[in-house]
Amino acid sequence: MLMSLKTGPRIKEIHITPIAIVDPPLLNAAGLHAPYALRTIVELVTDDGISGISEIPGTSAIDAALHDSIALLIGKDVFQLNEIRQVLINRFGTDTAAERGETPWDQRKLVHIFSAIEVACMDIIGKVTGRPIVDLLGGKMRDRVPFAAYLFYKYGGAGGELGFGTDPAATGWAAARQASGLTPVEMVTQAKAMCTEFGFQSIKLKGGVFEPQQEVDAMFALHEAFGPDIPLRLDPNAIWKLETGIKYGRQLEPILEYLEDPVRGQENMAKVRQALTIPLATNMCTTSFGDIPNSIRLGAEDIILSDHHFWGGLRASMTLAGICETFGRGLSMHSNSHLGISLAAMVHLGAALPHLTYALDTHYPWQSDEIITAGRFTFEEGAVAVPTEPGLGVELDRIALARLHQNYLSCGLTKRDDQVEMQKVQPGWTFQSVRW
Amino acid sequence: MLMSLKTGPRIKEIHITPIAIVDPPLLNAAGLHAPYALRTIVELVTDDGISGISEIPGTSAIDAALHDSIALLIGKDVFQLNEIRQVLINRFGTDTAAERGETPWDQRKLVHIFSAIEVACMDIIGKVTGRPIVDLLGGKMRDRVPFAAYLFYKYGGAGGELGFGTDPAATGWAAARQASGLTPVEMVTQAKAMCTEFGFQSIKLKGGVFEPQQEVDAMFALHEAFGPDIPLRLDPNAIWKLETGIKYGRQLEPILEYLEDPVRGQENMAKVRQALTIPLATNMCTTSFGDIPNSIRLGAEDIILSDHHFWGGLRASMTLAGICETFGRGLSMHSNSHLGISLAAMVHLGAALPHLTYALDTHYPWQSDEIITAGRFTFEEGAVAVPTEPGLGVELDRIALARLHQNYLSCGLTKRDDQVEMQKVQPGWTFQSVRW
Repeated sequence: MLMSLKTGPRIKEIHITPIAIVDPPLLNAAGLHAPYALRTIVELVTDDGISGISEIPGTSAIDAALHDSIALLIGKDVFQLNEIRQVLINRFGTDTAAERGETPWDQRKLVHIFSAIEVACMDIIGKVTGRPIVDLLGGKMRDRVPFAAYLFYKYGGAGGELGFGTDPAATGWAAARQASGLTPVEMVTQAKAMCTEFGFQSIKLKGGVFEPQQEVDAMFALHEAFGPDIPLRLDPNAIWKLETGIKYGRQLEPILEYLEDPVRGQENMAKVRQALTIPLATNMCTTSFGDIPNSIRLGAEDIILSDHHFWGGLRASMTLAGICETFGRGLSMHSNSHLGISLAAMVHLGAALPHLTYALDTHYPWQSDEIITAGRFTFEEGAVAVPTEPGLGVELDRIALARLHQNYLSCGLTKRDDQVEMQKVQPGWTFQSVRW
Repeated sequence: MLMSLKTGPRIKEIHITPIAIVDPPLLNAAGLHAPYALRTIVELVTDDGISGISEIPGTSAIDAALHDSIALLIGKDVFQLNEIRQVLINRFGTDTAAERGETPWDQRKLVHIFSAIEVACMDIIGKVTGRPIVDLLGGKMRDRVPFAAYLFYKYGGAGGELGFGTDPAATGWAAARQASGLTPVEMVTQAKAMCTEFGFQSIKLKGGVFEPQQEVDAMFALHEAFGPDIPLRLDPNAIWKLETGIKYGRQLEPILEYLEDPVRGQENMAKVRQALTIPLATNMCTTSFGDIPNSIRLGAEDIILSDHHFWGGLRASMTLAGICETFGRGLSMHSNSHLGISLAAMVHLGAALPHLTYALDTHYPWQSDEIITAGRFTFEEGAVAVPTEPGLGVELDRIALARLHQNYLSCGLTKRDDQVEMQKVQPGWTFQSVRW
C-alpha cells in the first residue's frame, strides 16, 4: 500500500478536440439554441500513459488559448495544480471586466482553460491514487447528487431540425423533447414527461423569453400541476427591469423556491432582494471571485449557482463553497448544454459540497449524444449516483469523439450565438439585455 | 501505477498523548510562559497498519474531547474528511461566541480536534499515495518556506529554571536563549543571535509586556541595528487602548512592515487601521470563519495570521487563503510554542499557499525538545525546505514521545495559564485585556 511516487506523473501529451453535439431549439433571453452546442474535450496523457479527460464549453477562442498553453504545460506534474494555475495566470492574466464584456458570466479564458486542465489532472490523480475525484475534494457527503428538471420554452424538433408542430400531447420524454413548448399547458406537459423519465424532485423554467406574465402563468400552471412539495424556480436571465423584477417577484413569492437572476447587475439584484421575501439566486450577477466583495457589500443574492467551468475548476468551487458558507450564502450549480464528462465532474463536486440544499441544474436530459464509453448517465429519483471508479469514473468513447468532432467540422459553428439562430426563425430579432 | 483502492484505509486506532515540552520564560500580555508548554500528539493507525500523526496545542479539555471522539472516528476512511468534519460538528457543534470567551483565538474544540484528525489523515493519505501533503493541497508554490525571527521579552533561563541574570552579551543563540531580554539593547542582542543562527530575514517582537514607549524604543533599536531591508513587526497582543494604538502606530509607521493586533476587537482595529498607513495584521480579532463577515464589513485588518490548528485544518486554511485573495487581504501564519510535527504541517501549508508575501511566525527556535526521528528542523536563510517524503515527511520518535509524556505527567499542568506563572515572579499580577 505504501507508495513512493514523489514526482510525476507528468503531462506528455495534450489533445484538444472541439465537438458539436445535437441540441434542441431551446429558447432563452439571448435567443435560440443552435442545432448544435459546442463543447471542447481535453485529454491529457502522462509520460506513463495514463489518460485524464475533461469537457468545457467550446469556442474557437478558448480552443486557441488551450493550444497556446500546451507548451507551458508539457512536462508538468499533474499534482502541481497551484503552479499550473499560476503559469496560466502569467500567460492569460486573471479575468478583467474588459474581457468579460456583455456576457460577464462567460468569455474568460483563464477559468475555462484552468478548469479543463485541472479536471483532467484530477482524473489522472484519481487514477494513480485509486480514488474517485470526490475523495480528492475531501470525500462524499452524499452518495447521490440531486438535479432539477430544467424546462425550456422551445420550438418543436430536435436533432438540428426545426420541426414545428410536433404533438405536445405525445407521451414520454423522447416525444416531449421533440415537441414544442410555448404555452403554460405545453410547459406542464414537458415537465411531466421530464419528471416521469428522470424522477426530478425540483423544477426550473428558463424564462426571459416571453413577456413576464406568460412566464409567471407557466409557473402557476406548474405549481397547480405538481403541488407545493415540488420546489419551483424561474430564471428570467436578467432581462427584466427592476420594477418588473419586484412586481412579478412578489406575484411569485407564494410558489417559488427561489427566483434566479430576475434583473441585471448586482445593484438591481440587491434592490429586488430587499423587496422580496423569497431567495434570489444568480449565475449572472456574481460569477467570479472578483465579483464576491461587491456581492457581499450589496447583498446581491442569497444563492450562488456555481459552475466549475466558469469558476476555475473543482477546487476553486470548493473554495467558493467555503465563501458561501462563511457569508451565509447558499450554493447550487448552473449548467450549459453538456455531455457526461462535465456531468461526472459536476456530480463529484456536488457530492463533496458540505452543504447542498438545492438540487443542481443540468441540461443533460436535452442532450442525446454521449461521449463516454458507458453510455448516457441514468437518473434515479432525479439524482445521479456518484461514480466510484478512480478519477472521474468515466472513459472517453473515441468513436463518439471522432463522430462529434466531424459534426463540429461540418456544422461550421465556432462559438455560441443564440441571436443569429433566433434571427433564422424571427428575422430582425435582436438581443436586448433588458427587455421588459 | 494504476491502483484500485476505492475504500479505506480506515482508522483502526487513535492514540492521544499529551506532552510537555521545555519552554523558556517568555513574556506576553497574558503573563509568562510556564516552564513547560503543553502539546497533544495524535496518532491514527489504519487497518493496514499505516500511521499518521499530528500535533496540536494541548489542554486537558481538548484531550478529553479527542477521547470522546474516538468512537465516532474508528472505522472511517481517512479520505472522507468532509464526513469526518460533519461528524465532529454534530458532536461538538461549531464554535460559538460563548465557547470562546476571553480568549477568542482559542478554546474552540471543533477546530482543534478536526485539525488534529485532518492532519493525521492527510499524513496517511500522503503515505498511501506516495505524495507529500503539499501535493494534496494543490502542490508547491515554493521549495522553501520563509519564517520570521520571533523575539520575546523574557527572563533569563530556560529549561524550567528562572535563572535571572545570564549574561546577554554571551554569543550564540543557545546563550541568547538563556539570557534575559528586557531592554532595547538586550532585544537587539537576542535578535542578532537568532538571525545569525537561523538566517531570518524578518523580525517580529511579541510586545504587550511593557508600557508602549519601551516597546516602540525596542523596535527603533532593531531598526537601527538591522537597517531598512529587514521587515519589522510588533505585536502588542491587543492590550493597547484605541488612542494608544493610533499614537504609537503613527510613531512606528516609518519602520514597520505591519503592526499586529495593537488593539482589542474588530471595531477598534478598524479605527486604528483608518488612522494609519501601515497594514494591520491579526490573529486575535479575526480568528474564525465566523469572524470574517464582520471583518470585511468593518475593514478590521489587512493581513490575517492564519493557524491551521485554530482555523480547522490545512484544507480550511486553503479556503481562508481563497477568502483573503478574494477580499484583498494578505495572509501569513501565527504560531504557538510547538515541535516539528506542527512545523512540518505549517511548512506544507505555507508551500501550497498561492500568495505568501510575509514570512511566517514560529516559536520553534525557542524550543529545544523534538519528537520526530530526524531531530530538529534546520533553517537556512530563515526558511525551511518543504519535506519531500510522503505525507508530513516526519516520523514520530517514540522514545521522545514517552519522555515528553512523562514530563506532562510530572509537571502537573493541564492547560496554559500565563497569569499563574507571572504571579510566581510578580505576586499579585493580574491579566488586563486592555492595559495601556
